[in-house]
Amino acid sequence: MKTSHIEHIGIAVKNLDESILYYENVLGLKCYAVEEVKDQKVKTAFFQLGQTKIELLESTDPEGPIGKFIEKRGEGIHHIAFAVEDIEGCLQEVEGKGIRLIDQKPRRGAEGLDIAFLHPKSTYGVLTEFCEDKN
Amino acid sequence: MKTSHIEHIGIAVKNLDESILYYENVLGLKCYAVEEVKDQKVKTAFFQLGQTKIELLESTDPEGPIGKFIEKRGEGIHHIAFAVEDIEGCLQEVEGKGIRLIDQKPRRGAEGLDIAFLHPKSTYGVLTEFCEDKN
Repeated sequence: MKTSHIEHIGIAVKNLDESILYYENVLGLKCYAVEEVKDQKVKTAFFQLGQTKIELLESTDPEGPIGKFIEKRGEGIHHIAFAVEDIEGCLQEVEGKGIRLIDQKPRRGAEGLDIAFLHPKSTYGVLTEFCEDKN
Repeated sequence: MKTSHIEHIGIAVKNLDESILYYENVLGLKCYAVEEVKDQKVKTAFFQLGQTKIELLESTDPEGPIGKFIEKRGEGIHHIAFAVEDIEGCLQEVEGKGIRLIDQKPRRGAEGLDIAFLHPKSTYGVLTEFCEDKN
């Protein structure tokens, strides 16, 4: 498989509005979109920085994946997403190499991308996402 | 302050050689350098992916920062490094905005860059590094 760049870095936060202020006022970035992804029980905020986005994730439900992550580990970096082509082929290829998939097939993520996650137990502790923009 | 791109993402791993194989054989990246940073008690491996590097960090001492991180949280994403200009000015500016600095002044990091860390307690849980290439 081939990845061209890091599409985004996902960061779990307790309070989206407060964290947006930090990224804007301290780091000088500009939030260009806020979007709720109901499927993932999160509200997201996006910043573009060169080729890569920073995606802040606030849980809308303590039982959702980000709510559980924050309860267990606190706020912080949650996942890395790699931009790929042929996401279905990539999933098949890495599964063939022994990687455990969270998503057997791509699903629709924020910004209309096709996304799928690999399990951190088989990726040396890094929750890893593949992203493909088919639009 | 202004950052142009994400310079690298630091990932704490237990075994550098094993993890390099995963990034090469599964994700299709190419390790272009391995370097020991004695000051930080780590051995590092670098992969270039678009504008951003992935820096794997193996501890050379259980009492070093990566050794302690892994003991507490396991392997995984450790920090994000932002490429900046005038790193001294950036540190002064963010400190003036209430951010707690780990490094009051830049020091020499891997690849000869000037680096400094911000404390995750004041950056919403994200261990944040500034990097400047003065060469």
